[in-house]
Amino acid sequence: MSLRIAVDAMGGDHAPEHPVAGAVLAARELGADIVLVGQREPIESALRQHTPAPDVEIVHAEEVIGMDESPATALRRKRGSSIHVAAQLLRNGEVSGMVSAGNTGAVMVMAKLYVGSIEGVDRPALSVVLPTLLGHVVLLDVGANIDPRSQHLVQFGVMGHFFATQILGVKNPKVGLLSIGQEAGKGTDLIREGHAALRRSPLNFIGNIESNDIYSGATDVVVCDGFTGNVVLKTSEAVVETMLYLLRDELTSTRRGKLGARLARESFRNYRSRVDYASWGGAPLLGLKGSCVICHGRSSAKAIKNGIRVAIEYGEQRVSERIEEALRGLADEQLVEAPADSPGPSA
Amino acid sequence: MSLRIAVDAMGGDHAPEHPVAGAVLAARELGADIVLVGQREPIESALRQHTPAPDVEIVHAEEVIGMDESPATALRRKRGSSIHVAAQLLRNGEVSGMVSAGNTGAVMVMAKLYVGSIEGVDRPALSVVLPTLLGHVVLLDVGANIDPRSQHLVQFGVMGHFFATQILGVKNPKVGLLSIGQEAGKGTDLIREGHAALRRSPLNFIGNIESNDIYSGATDVVVCDGFTGNVVLKTSEAVVETMLYLLRDELTSTRRGKLGARLARESFRNYRSRVDYASWGGAPLLGLKGSCVICHGRSSAKAIKNGIRVAIEYGEQRVSERIEEALRGLADEQLVEAPADSPGPSA
Repeated sequence: MSLRIAVDAMGGDHAPEHPVAGAVLAARELGADIVLVGQREPIESALRQHTPAPDVEIVHAEEVIGMDESPATALRRKRGSSIHVAAQLLRNGEVSGMVSAGNTGAVMVMAKLYVGSIEGVDRPALSVVLPTLLGHVVLLDVGANIDPRSQHLVQFGVMGHFFATQILGVKNPKVGLLSIGQEAGKGTDLIREGHAALRRSPLNFIGNIESNDIYSGATDVVVCDGFTGNVVLKTSEAVVETMLYLLRDELTSTRRGKLGARLARESFRNYRSRVDYASWGGAPLLGLKGSCVICHGRSSAKAIKNGIRVAIEYGEQRVSERIEEALRGLADEQLVEAPADSPGPSA
Repeated sequence: MSLRIAVDAMGGDHAPEHPVAGAVLAARELGADIVLVGQREPIESALRQHTPAPDVEIVHAEEVIGMDESPATALRRKRGSSIHVAAQLLRNGEVSGMVSAGNTGAVMVMAKLYVGSIEGVDRPALSVVLPTLLGHVVLLDVGANIDPRSQHLVQFGVMGHFFATQILGVKNPKVGLLSIGQEAGKGTDLIREGHAALRRSPLNFIGNIESNDIYSGATDVVVCDGFTGNVVLKTSEAVVETMLYLLRDELTSTRRGKLGARLARESFRNYRSRVDYASWGGAPLLGLKGSCVICHGRSSAKAIKNGIRVAIEYGEQRVSERIEEALRGLADEQLVEAPADSPGPSA
């Protein structure tokens, strides 16, 4: 029996249509057991677009948190929002996971508040899977922790390791630390301390990498602070979009270009799907007691369905539990920063 | 009469061939007055590939700094290197600018040491020009200062402003601060303090931007710390290369794809040149007393020629002098950080 997943029907730029359509796809194609959370009437109306409508439960939530609302304000003022209600369902064990394409900050804050972190994880991290020339790479953190310390980077590495093994099926995944040069001594203080801490960990740490290595397939997991990771993610998306736009612009500006593009239509379709960052499905908030997947605000039905798939696999593979066990197994000294100055024996 | 430019003939992955070929192109097409710096024999041999060889002076430098050598070691041990000699020519006023595709760290260290910063600039910044949907954007710092303070971000803004006006011809350029959200309160401490300091400056500051705004043309200048800027630059290059590779892979995998690609050949050629980050020429080290342009290690002859063009324009437009005047005009309080805690009146 599939695990039960709450889907925030009100989250994203095309809510409730896309989340509802994604839930319908997941129910049909994956046999997923879905709870749609949000305003009952618009959800029912969106469900009626799909016949025969699969058997999907609705849990009503009156309020909707806007995409640009401050998470702190939303937390205080909109206690009946779909994100609140979904997080509460997860906390109470009524569902095994939640999926939202809504306000990322609000989802993170409420998941952390209601669901909490597993033991050994100080700060859950948002992770994404990016395509590389050889396969896929897990990048984390991409926005949950903008100012982590070195022991958090090690925890990110452990979480990325288990995500890569359990969800992507990579054996003994390579873990790299994102910096601006491969030398251990290069980069900020955080990078230098993080490098030393990762070196002491039992992870398959390959050292510092540069951002061009993310896409070459040189590593399976890339660890960084949430500010840098968010910049990498948004820069990548922007370059992909700009390049697709310019390609279209060039091909449509001449008759020969148009003709060539028509002939090679199938190649272009495959190409677009290979560079489509949304196709993977969503970013799991790793380290949470439970499975919470955050999808892009612009998610299509297919992206939502893939987000639901990730949430189910995450639960089935017991990723949270495995991370918790692994962190318990790590010797304390491996996760604690070296003291800035070691005091000598007391006089 | 064109300004005299020293070109590091030994710098880059294809030295001395590409730097020499770039210098020849610049002499022919721009009428540039070039001094090639490096080992005389290989340079003369490379020059003989070009007939008729233009009148280019050679200044011999015995040693070559490797692309991966530590700048600190190179500074101490290789005092006769082409980078040293070029920086000394610039310091002594024998040339007006220098161009190198060599070891970036070594060029920065030696330019700062021998040539020095202009008054008002604490730390020169490496800047690049990137293509956007609407034109170009200046991004700085991309690697010279990985841990700046907020007043340095304002100086980067001033330098970017003058680069955009004098070299790119933009009137009253918009300056944005790179963060992970548009809200002034979002981001690291540096971002919050930098935002406040830029707000107080006379720059046309449009506030915080996200990295997708870099390529949309929303701003003319993007200010960030050198770690983040370097990550943006390398991520962008990596995504461009990955996308070109995948496009080629798809188009060559079927007969229709190959045929379509052949028909649209000209469109693809234009496309490649529009997304070619190397085509702009090089990254000037802004804030230096003199013009120093650092080119990509993989620079083609055309890229070197464009780097030489930037170095000439930089000098002709008196960019350094204008930055110096502007910084002198800024009131002190606009450039100084607010104290972390304001002490009350003494008891």
